[in-house]
Amino acid sequence: MTRTILSSATKEVVIGFDQPFVMIGERINPTGRKLLAAEMKEGNFDRVIADAIAQVEGGAQMLDVNAGIPLADEPALLAKAIQLVQGVTDVPLCIDSSIIEALEAGIAVYEGKPLINSVTGEDENLERVLPLVARHGAAVVAISNDETGISEDPDVRFEVAKKIVNRAADHGIKPEDVVVDPLVMPIGAMGGAGRQVFALVHRLRTELGVNTTCGASNVSFGLPNRHVVTGTFLAMAISHGMTSAIMNPLHKEVKDSVMAADVLNNQDPNCAAWIQANRDPNADAGARGRRTGRRRGASA
Amino acid sequence: MTRTILSSATKEVVIGFDQPFVMIGERINPTGRKLLAAEMKEGNFDRVIADAIAQVEGGAQMLDVNAGIPLADEPALLAKAIQLVQGVTDVPLCIDSSIIEALEAGIAVYEGKPLINSVTGEDENLERVLPLVARHGAAVVAISNDETGISEDPDVRFEVAKKIVNRAADHGIKPEDVVVDPLVMPIGAMGGAGRQVFALVHRLRTELGVNTTCGASNVSFGLPNRHVVTGTFLAMAISHGMTSAIMNPLHKEVKDSVMAADVLNNQDPNCAAWIQANRDPNADAGARGRRTGRRRGASA
Repeated sequence: MTRTILSSATKEVVIGFDQPFVMIGERINPTGRKLLAAEMKEGNFDRVIADAIAQVEGGAQMLDVNAGIPLADEPALLAKAIQLVQGVTDVPLCIDSSIIEALEAGIAVYEGKPLINSVTGEDENLERVLPLVARHGAAVVAISNDETGISEDPDVRFEVAKKIVNRAADHGIKPEDVVVDPLVMPIGAMGGAGRQVFALVHRLRTELGVNTTCGASNVSFGLPNRHVVTGTFLAMAISHGMTSAIMNPLHKEVKDSVMAADVLNNQDPNCAAWIQANRDPNADAGARGRRTGRRRGASA
Repeated sequence: MTRTILSSATKEVVIGFDQPFVMIGERINPTGRKLLAAEMKEGNFDRVIADAIAQVEGGAQMLDVNAGIPLADEPALLAKAIQLVQGVTDVPLCIDSSIIEALEAGIAVYEGKPLINSVTGEDENLERVLPLVARHGAAVVAISNDETGISEDPDVRFEVAKKIVNRAADHGIKPEDVVVDPLVMPIGAMGGAGRQVFALVHRLRTELGVNTTCGASNVSFGLPNRHVVTGTFLAMAISHGMTSAIMNPLHKEVKDSVMAADVLNNQDPNCAAWIQANRDPNADAGARGRRTGRRRGASA
């Protein structure tokens, strides 16, 4: 049973085949969020802190932290964001950047064992990111694209993932510390994208023995009522073995679908989490994360 | 590609591996509906007619019709219900009874090729139902229990299904006219019930080449927010190959989940049905079946 263990200073989270699905909050990411980007660039992290608290109250077991802002000092911003988020929450973090210096700065200030997001199958990228991951005893998200881009052929994506897992092993990183992202395309642009991912997740799990994750929202890009599409996608992916996703736990349809999928996948013993979340509206912080965010301590 | 073709006097519906999921409306069933049972027993079929219209407007491609009322003349009631339903809708029907005489009476008045619900793996039942199905060129739902009851072992349930398919063949009924119900247990009572069904559906499809169906609502029995559990179950089952279910298309969460699963399973070309259902609230009869039931003809 593959288990990827991540930690903060005080808390451990396990991504694993025999575990409830791990929701990694996606919100702390300035990509496509102009206001957040402007604020972070000016050194105002109020929204980062609020987003961190709201997502954890909404059920996120981990948080992704990204500071990718054009013309900004990304390493400094990412390090600052990580320190602040670790100051207000106790969940392990996913340190997210395509810039090696930013990953380095983030890891340097991080307390615990983080998930580094990400390494690709490109040789240059592998040789820069993997030593960093190995040196800090971290885990890493492996994105299954390489120099040739993102293949539409799932067999090619599988081979890229396999290459990354093997290369990681050369650096002393075990397969359980490589979480593969099979890459999720918008279903509106590519009708076979869902079935590809389901088949790929199954292969990654059974043949490589690795955990998997994805940027879930992408699947519903451009469609109406998209949170239902995203949630349904995750439930289907879970039933084929996906074990985590970078997603928004504050979208009720998405979170409900993931929690129901845990029940149906036999990862919610006695349906306890489901019953707890759905019995008393005040106890369901997930469905109302934003609104109850200010009412912590109120009786449930 | 297995295709089960059902028909009314004027309309054909195909259950198949390469088809959108077929929603069979579950509502016309007096079990657990005291008022409906009392009305039908008195010869009042107004609610049957209203339920038929509402479910078809809600997106049901077929309707299940059951008249199982204690101490009533079930054959006469079932025949009457089928005639009335065929008078107000054009979808093929699922003739549902555990009493052979009721099935006979229902088939006798039915126009088209119905789905007979059901035959079990019990020898006596097989030898009474299958000749009826064969004689009328109908299709049949095969429930995978036998003299020993419902096994908790999915391998036993698979073997019972296989026995029924083979016995049907002896009567000249092709595998594509046998739709297997793998039997769905309440997930709250049996945590492994979901994964069992997913594995069984996959085997039934790949090894026996048959279509599958189930009584979907049963999975969420006793749980809060149960329509989300039922809908999520169906999406997961669809991704493992389930091709139809007896369900309630008027429950928005269930129908949305099935429609999103069709999108993600690449059975909704260009997401056309999804976009149509979600673009304009007035066009989405499914989500609001009951309320818009009286407003047919209103502009969408």
